[in-house]
Amino acid sequence: MGTSKRGKASLLFEDPPLILSAASVVGKKEGEGPLGKYFDRIEMDSMLGKRTWEEAESELQTRTARLAIEKSGLDKEEIRYYFGGDLLAQLIATSFGSMDLEFPMFGLYGACSTMGEGLQLGSMTVAGDFADRVLVTASSHFASAEKQFRFPLEYGNQRPLSATWTVTGCGAVVLGKGGGGSPLARVAGITTGKIVDMDFKDSMNMGAAMAMAALDTIVTNFKDLGVDERYYDRIITGDLGTVGRRLLLDYLLKAGHDIESRYMDCGIEIFDGSTQDTHAGGSGCGCSAAVLCGYILPRIQQGEWKRVLFMPTGALLSTVSFNEGKSVPGIAHGVVLERMDEGRK
Amino acid sequence: MGTSKRGKASLLFEDPPLILSAASVVGKKEGEGPLGKYFDRIEMDSMLGKRTWEEAESELQTRTARLAIEKSGLDKEEIRYYFGGDLLAQLIATSFGSMDLEFPMFGLYGACSTMGEGLQLGSMTVAGDFADRVLVTASSHFASAEKQFRFPLEYGNQRPLSATWTVTGCGAVVLGKGGGGSPLARVAGITTGKIVDMDFKDSMNMGAAMAMAALDTIVTNFKDLGVDERYYDRIITGDLGTVGRRLLLDYLLKAGHDIESRYMDCGIEIFDGSTQDTHAGGSGCGCSAAVLCGYILPRIQQGEWKRVLFMPTGALLSTVSFNEGKSVPGIAHGVVLERMDEGRK
Repeated sequence: MGTSKRGKASLLFEDPPLILSAASVVGKKEGEGPLGKYFDRIEMDSMLGKRTWEEAESELQTRTARLAIEKSGLDKEEIRYYFGGDLLAQLIATSFGSMDLEFPMFGLYGACSTMGEGLQLGSMTVAGDFADRVLVTASSHFASAEKQFRFPLEYGNQRPLSATWTVTGCGAVVLGKGGGGSPLARVAGITTGKIVDMDFKDSMNMGAAMAMAALDTIVTNFKDLGVDERYYDRIITGDLGTVGRRLLLDYLLKAGHDIESRYMDCGIEIFDGSTQDTHAGGSGCGCSAAVLCGYILPRIQQGEWKRVLFMPTGALLSTVSFNEGKSVPGIAHGVVLERMDEGRK
Repeated sequence: MGTSKRGKASLLFEDPPLILSAASVVGKKEGEGPLGKYFDRIEMDSMLGKRTWEEAESELQTRTARLAIEKSGLDKEEIRYYFGGDLLAQLIATSFGSMDLEFPMFGLYGACSTMGEGLQLGSMTVAGDFADRVLVTASSHFASAEKQFRFPLEYGNQRPLSATWTVTGCGAVVLGKGGGGSPLARVAGITTGKIVDMDFKDSMNMGAAMAMAALDTIVTNFKDLGVDERYYDRIITGDLGTVGRRLLLDYLLKAGHDIESRYMDCGIEIFDGSTQDTHAGGSGCGCSAAVLCGYILPRIQQGEWKRVLFMPTGALLSTVSFNEGKSVPGIAHGVVLERMDEGRK
């Protein structure tokens, strides 16, 4: 056991936690998108058989968590803690969605960066020998989020082109030291984000608000680890969308880092903006979580990418803060994922 | 470095993290209560000089965090991570209240159990050698919470006697391996709560909803550590209030544990129910956090109590879940605090 603190915000794990299994469940629209074939399950009923959108999101989280446990080949009792979060006020999707599993529970809120926050805390918990295995999950649902953050669905309001489309989806991973089949990847290290406020006040352009947080976490990661963009085969943000993407790439170029050839954004990949009317891209906790589990981790396992900086991005606002004229600060949490047979630095 | 996993939900730290400093800041009403003289600072202006209740709560969190750092004698740069949370949707009090401090940041939501959740994750982070020192904080504000969860303040609505009064307060501790003066106590171990749902549906009686979660965590703690109530000088819940207190004591007695002589509830202590019109007691993240920092930790440091089970309790609801007819599940996170010179078991 051991670890190495690097710089102000990064850790490299001497004995990296392994991602033992991953599950992704998404909605119909996500299933029709370019990544549709990679997800474990596509729910054609957006209510998932429940009475309300919130119950539907809870059910989505329950099903994804159960599938991740099933795919790990472990008994539920072999997993010690549950780290989970969502976008809803007071985390009701997570509380009601994790309840029946009866795990000792840590509720997390990092807006759309929650999967990164969960992977960081879960990895520390495993690397520190506080648990042999933990479950990490994050979910979002288009209808529960739209209702809460924007307008009633019935309005059918017009959305500006900079707006994103909240993904109906959930990703869940089992992290651990071993056991339960062939691991997908290892968590080599983490860079924990700080809150970055550029005084952006447009809640319909959250990509711009989050781009500066992503910039900060990438630059901190490079500095803390003494590396640059060539260290990674892919640098993947959560849901900057097309507007945030351009800002991030431009600012990084000014800082001397040309990452465009190895850059990807989960929100841009999950929908086909030209045919799916999703404007700047997908967003929500479930976007990066489902793309991680369905698309990114298998690519690492199969050896297509040997090292990835996975960095979900979150916009820290509520309708109250926004309506009171506050800005939209951002946060981005970086997780360094490596192929299992990759040599250690 | 090392730890010992005990049972399903508990850890004992071989090298326990120390509470290096603690700060408590409360509002005027809390300052007039029985514990008023123990808090570091009483804010007579409930707006704390800000425009909105939410900004006031953020300012409360900023001031308390800064005071905890100041009292530790450490530079801000010697503290690595910030663990924080509050009751507001999307944690806006914490996001806007921690932003200027620029720490790598973990946002937590455990309702009124948040200080327990933060102490647990912060302790693992320090015990696992992932940080030399971290800051843990939780806040609530009567007006921001009342406005969000209950009725507009202007209604002046009547409250049932089972209802609690949200505390305007914040507690913050610096946890670490050492440095910065004389520690207040050590975190000997933790018992992480699970979500307990008894199908209670009365949001004006959250003490009852949380009592069963407290029961579960206490019984789990006893079982995991192989101890009973005699192991502790005090068993302290967060904000069960008078109704939840009675339920907890009765159910524990049925389970063979008479804890009444060593039991205390932060919510009952912080107000004088007979003169302050607070009904069942105080509540909110800030209640147990401020009482911990202002009242409990000094009592441990001075040797009055040598071992305390501190257990903030949270009710997991939002106005959406409640109005959609969902129950109010509870969660309680246990933290074992010991006097510095107490022999290890």
